Formats: sequence, structure tokens, C-alpha cells
Amino acid sequence: MKIAILGGDGFVGWPTSLHLSSLGHEIHIVDNLSRRWIDTELGVQSLTPMDSIQERCRIWREVTGRRLSFHFLDIAKEYDRFKAWLEEHRPDAVIHFAEQRAAPYSMKSDRHKVYTVNNNVNATHNVLAALVETGIDAHLVHLGTMGVYGYSTIGAAIPEGYLPVGIETLGGETVQQEILYPTRPGSVYHMTKSLDQILFQFYAQNDGLRITDLHQGIVWGTHTEQTRLHPQLVNRFDYDGDYGTVLNRFLIQAAIGYPLTVHGTGGQTRAFIHIQDSVRCIELALGDAPKQGERVRIFNQMTETHRVRDLANLVARLTGAEVAFLPNPRKEAEENDLIVQNDQFLALGLDPIRLQDGLLAEVVDVAKKFAHRIDRSRVPAVSAWTKDIAARVDRDPERKALRPAS
Amino acid sequence: MKIAILGGDGFVGWPTSLHLSSLGHEIHIVDNLSRRWIDTELGVQSLTPMDSIQERCRIWREVTGRRLSFHFLDIAKEYDRFKAWLEEHRPDAVIHFAEQRAAPYSMKSDRHKVYTVNNNVNATHNVLAALVETGIDAHLVHLGTMGVYGYSTIGAAIPEGYLPVGIETLGGETVQQEILYPTRPGSVYHMTKSLDQILFQFYAQNDGLRITDLHQGIVWGTHTEQTRLHPQLVNRFDYDGDYGTVLNRFLIQAAIGYPLTVHGTGGQTRAFIHIQDSVRCIELALGDAPKQGERVRIFNQMTETHRVRDLANLVARLTGAEVAFLPNPRKEAEENDLIVQNDQFLALGLDPIRLQDGLLAEVVDVAKKFAHRIDRSRVPAVSAWTKDIAARVDRDPERKALRPAS
Ligand SMILES: NC(=O)c1ccc[n+]([C@@H]2O[C@H](COP(=O)([O-])OP(=O)(O)OC[C@H]3O[C@@H](n4cnc5c(N)ncnc54)[C@H](O)[C@@H]3O)[C@@H](O)[C@H]2O)c1
Ligand SMILES: NC(=O)c1ccc[n+]([C@@H]2O[C@H](COP(=O)([O-])OP(=O)(O)OC[C@H]3O[C@@H](n4cnc5c(N)ncnc54)[C@H](O)[C@@H]3O)[C@@H](O)[C@H]2O)c1
Repeated sequence: MKIAILGGDGFVGWPTSLHLSSLGHEIHIVDNLSRRWIDTELGVQSLTPMDSIQERCRIWREVTGRRLSFHFLDIAKEYDRFKAWLEEHRPDAVIHFAEQRAAPYSMKSDRHKVYTVNNNVNATHNVLAALVETGIDAHLVHLGTMGVYGYSTIGAAIPEGYLPVGIETLGGETVQQEILYPTRPGSVYHMTKSLDQILFQFYAQNDGLRITDLHQGIVWGTHTEQTRLHPQLVNRFDYDGDYGTVLNRFLIQAAIGYPLTVHGTGGQTRAFIHIQDSVRCIELALGDAPKQGERVRIFNQMTETHRVRDLANLVARLTGAEVAFLPNPRKEAEENDLIVQNDQFLALGLDPIRLQDGLLAEVVDVAKKFAHRIDRSRVPAVSAWTKDIAARVDRDPERKALRPAS
Repeated sequence: MKIAILGGDGFVGWPTSLHLSSLGHEIHIVDNLSRRWIDTELGVQSLTPMDSIQERCRIWREVTGRRLSFHFLDIAKEYDRFKAWLEEHRPDAVIHFAEQRAAPYSMKSDRHKVYTVNNNVNATHNVLAALVETGIDAHLVHLGTMGVYGYSTIGAAIPEGYLPVGIETLGGETVQQEILYPTRPGSVYHMTKSLDQILFQFYAQNDGLRITDLHQGIVWGTHTEQTRLHPQLVNRFDYDGDYGTVLNRFLIQAAIGYPLTVHGTGGQTRAFIHIQDSVRCIELALGDAPKQGERVRIFNQMTETHRVRDLANLVARLTGAEVAFLPNPRKEAEENDLIVQNDQFLALGLDPIRLQDGLLAEVVDVAKKFAHRIDRSRVPAVSAWTKDIAARVDRDPERKALRPAS
């Protein structure tokens, strides 16, 4: 297959490109490199030394003989160029990772909120409009998040996308309808994923686009089979307070002798998936495309759930690190249960990698190996969800104490 | 009150500005005049000769002694200028009309789709982000549409915004939740209103913004008490295939001896409201602001429902015009029932103006008075919802026959 990977320079996009390339597909990475620019803006960098995308593609060629093409293009801002690009390349499938993906970054300031909405909504909508306009019947696979649902606070199982509801008709009978499972996003970033769902629903219905939306859990780990092939193929590894996801951050904190910082009570239950399973799920979803006229196919892409404080304790046991409880910069329920259905991927043959499996140790090794590159001042999560919270969090002495003197 | 009217140069915004000004409020119109630019793009114009906004404000001052301020500003593209403007003026209420509002225009081409999504989502989101950032606790009143619901095809009553659903918890009990009534928008324009709802839900929940979303029916008529005061205060009147709404279009067609063009079977039931009631509803909603922390208040702003073919027959009886059935350029159910709840406005004291009340004749008079300004070639609705429909509709001989030779 000829596959366009939008956002293929990113944390999930890069190993996905390698994985699908190694399976023999013709891979075209489309990326505006905005994520690298955000590194510059925030003054952070991947823990792992990450070469330019051009260099990484060159190394992949050298190591495997396979070609990866890179196309520098902003899919949110350059509609016409993107449409022309599609027209020229006519991919069989489009995998869409190209969004601003950090909830804390999306809440940093009004500028970051405006950027996130503008970038993500236009990116997704441009892809849809361009597919319709060019008449390319590609399977569109998008990465969403289970974080769009706030209903988990009532302790319901998160189904795969849809909820049957009974609607009373004028005649007095109750008609069963399957609706998009109602969302209650908790950040501007999550909100954009909730908007994406509506865009997908419309274009599947109006234009018969074939769309799969993967509601992914928090990705952890860093290596996949392919990124291990050469030091310069290494995946990016974010550990800062905005882009570092919770488990990877704990592992870094442990590696540098920093306490594991748990927000609030740490009673929030989250869903996780290892990066190796993430790329495998994408492969499985690609092979199972919906037909024209079918509704959007929604999968939960996760393998296990954990309470944040349990994760902290697990990492603490493994590494001897301490656990520190800090005020929560997010506006969210302190404690929630979470059960997520992922029957569809299990049925397609996913064999989940579990947290226990030695891979935790692998990440600690990566963290230790590059510990000299860690900027400790970037570890705290400082983006607050509201001005009230910002004021409160800032006044907190424990938090201040944790910050390096610098 | 000091009131900002975003989109105050438009069809509903202008009479709203006059109505609220005449009640003694301090009115600030903010508009980028994009609607006038679209007139230019399409080569259409308001049936009624419409002066510049600056001139209209001057006349209002002359006639009533009241001041209307006009501010030229694009709220979708100029976030920083808009925020500075808010900061300077600190309104008590913000009424948000500033979106691209024609479904056919939104479906004209990919460029129009992209423009509509970009303009509408960013306009709404910028307002929300700027209110939070400036800390202005203004009541935000937004104009939405009932067209976001496609479920009317199953013949259910359209409630005011929310649907109670039972969600089964992990413990096996069923918990009642009120969710946003599920949407199934039928055009890119309607889709943007469905996106708006999610933006509102988030900002009400996260930041305590006080928001009222008015899901309006199709507005008909042209005059209000204030626009009648002077010929140069006249409201705009759109009759073209993109911006002309169905009843106004029938009245124009009748006035120029053109057949009333009904799409499909005309079995679609739609909700209507007269422009005078529309401005009155906005006044009522303004006076009934939600409290901080309250969920978004959603009203259905309509007064009656009619099947399109019944409306055509009504106008035909009134005027002697013929009715012509044409292929439907929209993708929608041919026949649907519709019952809309509007208890909230009735409870606040709305006394609905009905279609029968001589106001139909008034619109025919307006149409006749300005019949010399009508460009007949602009009357057909030509924007098709999909490429298939475009091809089919274009091949239709009856439709071609209806087009003026030009
Ligand atoms: N990482 C996770 O834990 C996780 C969890 C759930 C969902 N997801 C989703 O998976 C996707 C990929 O996540 P990631 O962790 O790889 O993020 P990332 O930020 O590392 O990668 C995103 C890539 O998209 C590119 N991009 C952004 N906007 C673009 C635009 N307008 N035009 C072209 N390229 C653009 C960026 O430059 C970057 O290379 C995202 O949509 C994210 O929401 C990620
Ligand atoms: N007219 C109807 O029948 C009807 C029915 C239901 C809902 N509505 C809603 O009511 C609102 C007003 O409708 P209308 O008929 O008056 O539309 P309109 O097009 O006549 O007016 C909209 C105004 O907003 C301005 N505008 C658009 N984008 C802007 C931007 N980015 N910055 C500043 N100004 C901008 C336009 O220049 C125009 O003056 C719309 O949101 C519409 O969706 C209208």
C-alpha cells in the first residue's frame, strides 16, 4: 500500500512509519515539524538525541534498503498545497497524527488554546475536504484519545465509540439509536478530539469517506523493533511537564533521583499502551478498513488501566524513588474508576505488552543513559487549567521547594 | 447594559442592534463585513438597497438621537486585536452572530467548506478564550440552529438542548445523565454549530463562562419596528440560492412571476421565526442570564413549523404563483416530521407572530417594491451537497429550463 503518514516525525508517527515501511508499504511522511519548533519555544528537547527527519530517513535507507519520503507541509495552513500533494500521490491510506497533542500545552495561555484549536480542527478538516475534493477513496486512520470522555467519573465502562439510547418519538414509541458516546473533554486539547469526531461523522455520512478513529490511551515506552536497529533511528522521548506523559515522566524522575510527582491524590485512573503495541494496533486497523457508507469505526487503543498513584508506587518499588504529592494543576475529579472495552483489537489479534514485562526497566535504562541531557527545571508540570488554579498552585510552598534553585 | 454585537451588520444582527439600542442599551457593533464581501464574490446583493454600516449608524443617530458604535474587526483572524478591544470596552453582554451562516454556501466547493469551518470555529473559540483571558464576566449569547439535529427524521420532539440518558455503571446500576442532545448535522455550516456546542460546554465547565445558545429556526420577514423608521435603516434581504432562506425566496419568486421552487417532495418540515420575534427573543434571553458554573442554557428560538410544500402552497394561494418541484441539491430525508419544544421563551413572555398575520403580504410588498433590483439568474439554488448530486442536478432538464436564458 501507499501510505501517507501525517505527523510522521512525531513520537507515535515515526515508529509507525518505520513499522509500516518494514512491512513493505510505500511510506510518505508529511509533517510541518511544528513539534520540533515547540521544543524550541519551550526550551526543551527530547531526552534521546533526535536527528533531523531527513537524516533519519537517510539512515533508515542505509540500514534497511527501504525508502521513506519526507514532505514538509503544514496540513492546517496550506490547504491548496496539501490537496495538490494528495492529487499527485493518491495514497491508499492516510494516517493522521498531525495535531498538537499535549493537554498542558493547550492550557498554557490563550495563545496556546487558540493555536491548538486552529491547528487541530483545520488539520483534520482539511484532510477530509481534500479527500472529498480529489475523489481519493483512501482509508483515513486518525488518532484520537479516550480522554474525550468525562463520564468515566460515574464509573461506567468506556465502550468503543457508540452508545445506544432510546429516543421517544412523537407516536409515543421508543426508538433505539446509536449515538456517538457523549464526550466531556477536560482540556482544550481533548476538546479538539471531540470536535474531530463530529467532523468524521459528517464526512462519513455525507461523502462516504472511510474512517477509523483510534481512541488511544497514554503511550509509554520509547523503543520499537525498528527504532532499535540503529542509534540514529531512536524515537523521541519527552519528559517535560507539557509533553511528557505520566509514566515516562515517573521513569525519568526516578532515573535522576527526583521524587515522582503525583498530582492531587493520584486517584485518577488512566489507560495505557506501549509504543510497540501502538504501532501494531495501527497496522491492524489499517487491515480492517470500513466500507463506503459505513459509519466511522471507533476502536479503543489501549491495553491496561492503572491509577496514577499505583503507577508511582510501582516505579518507586522498581527504582527506590520517593513519591511526592503535589496540588493538581488540572481541573478534574480526584478519583475515578475506569474500565475500557478493547474487544475489537483483541479480536483482530493484538497480544498486549504489559507494564510488568521488563520494558519498564528498558525505559529506566534509556533515562539513565541520557541523564546528562535532562534539564531538571523542565520536569515540573506548570500549565494550570484555570487562573484560579494557577494562583493556588503557584502559592504552594511544597511545589516551590521541588523546583530546582536554578 | 453595554452590549457587544458581533456580526451586527448582518440580517439578524442589524435589527437586533437597533432593537437593543432603542431599549437604551449601549451598543457596539463588531463586524468584519465579510458578508458584504461574499455578496461581491457571488455577484449578488440584498434586495433592499443597503447602505454602508457607517451610514446606517449615522442615520440611526439622526432619527433617534442614539449612538451605535461600529468596530471593523475580524474576530476569527484577529485574536489579539479582539482581545484588546474587549479589554478596552468590557461589555456586560456579548451577542455572537459572527459566523458564515448559509448551508448552501458552505457546500459550494472545498474552498467554501474550509473557509466556513475556519471562520466559524475560530470566531467562536476566540470569543471564549478572550473572555477567559480578560476575566470579563459577560453573558455570551450565541445564535445556533436547530438544524444540527438530524434525529428529527425519526419523528422525535426536539427538546431544548439536552437529553437524559441512562448509563450503566460498573456496579450494574443505571445512572441518569443529561447529555447534549446528539447532533447529526447535514451540512458543513450546520456542523460548525455542532462544534460550537462542544466549545461552549467546555468553557462553561472549565472557566464558569455564562453562555446561552439560541437554536434558531429559519428567520423570515425583513422589517422590525426600528428598521421601519427610515428607508436607510432597512434590513438586508437575501433572495439568492445560497443566502435566501426558503420562505423569503418563495415570496420573491412570487413577486417576479417565477415558479416557487420546491426541492424534492418538499416534505421536509422546518421551524420558522419572524425577524421581529427573533430580536425579541434575544432581548428575553439577555434578561435571563445563567449563573457562573451553570451549564450552557439552550433555547429553541422558533415559533412554528411547516412543511416546505405547504409553505409553497400558502404563498401560491396568496399570490397566484405556480409551484415547481426540482431535484433536491441537499442530501437529506425527503419527508420528516418535526415538533420543537419552545417552552422556555413562551415562559419568558414571547407572544409569537404567526405566518398568517399580514406580514407575509408585507414581504411581498417589499419584494414588489424592489423587483427591478432582482437578478433572476441568482434565484436558483445551485450548490450541491456531493459531487454525485451535482452531476445529477446539472443533468436535469427541468432545472435547466428554469434557468433564465441569460
Ligand atoms: N502520545 C500519546 O500518549 C498519545 C495518546 C493518545 C493519543 N495520541 C495522539 O496520537 C497522535 C500523535 O501523537 P504523538 O505523541 O506522536 O504527538 P507528536 O506531537 O510527537 O507528533 C505529532 C506530529 O504532527 C506534526 N504536526 C502537528 N501539526 C501539524 C500540521 N498542521 N501539519 C503537519 N504536521 C503537523 C508535528 O510536527 C509532530 O511531528 C496525536 O494526534 C495525539 O493526539 C497520542
Ligand atoms: N438567518 C437565519 O435564518 C438564521 C437561522 C438560524 C440561525 N441563524 C444564525 O444567526 C446568526 C446571524 O445570522 P444572519 O442571518 O444575521 O447572518 P449574516 O450573514 O447576515 O450576518 C452575519 C454577520 O457576521 C459577520 N461576520 C462573519 N464572520 C465574521 C468574523 N470572523 N468577524 C467579524 N464578523 C463576522 C458578517 O459580516 C455578517 O455581517 C448566524 O450565526 C446564523 O447562523 C440565522
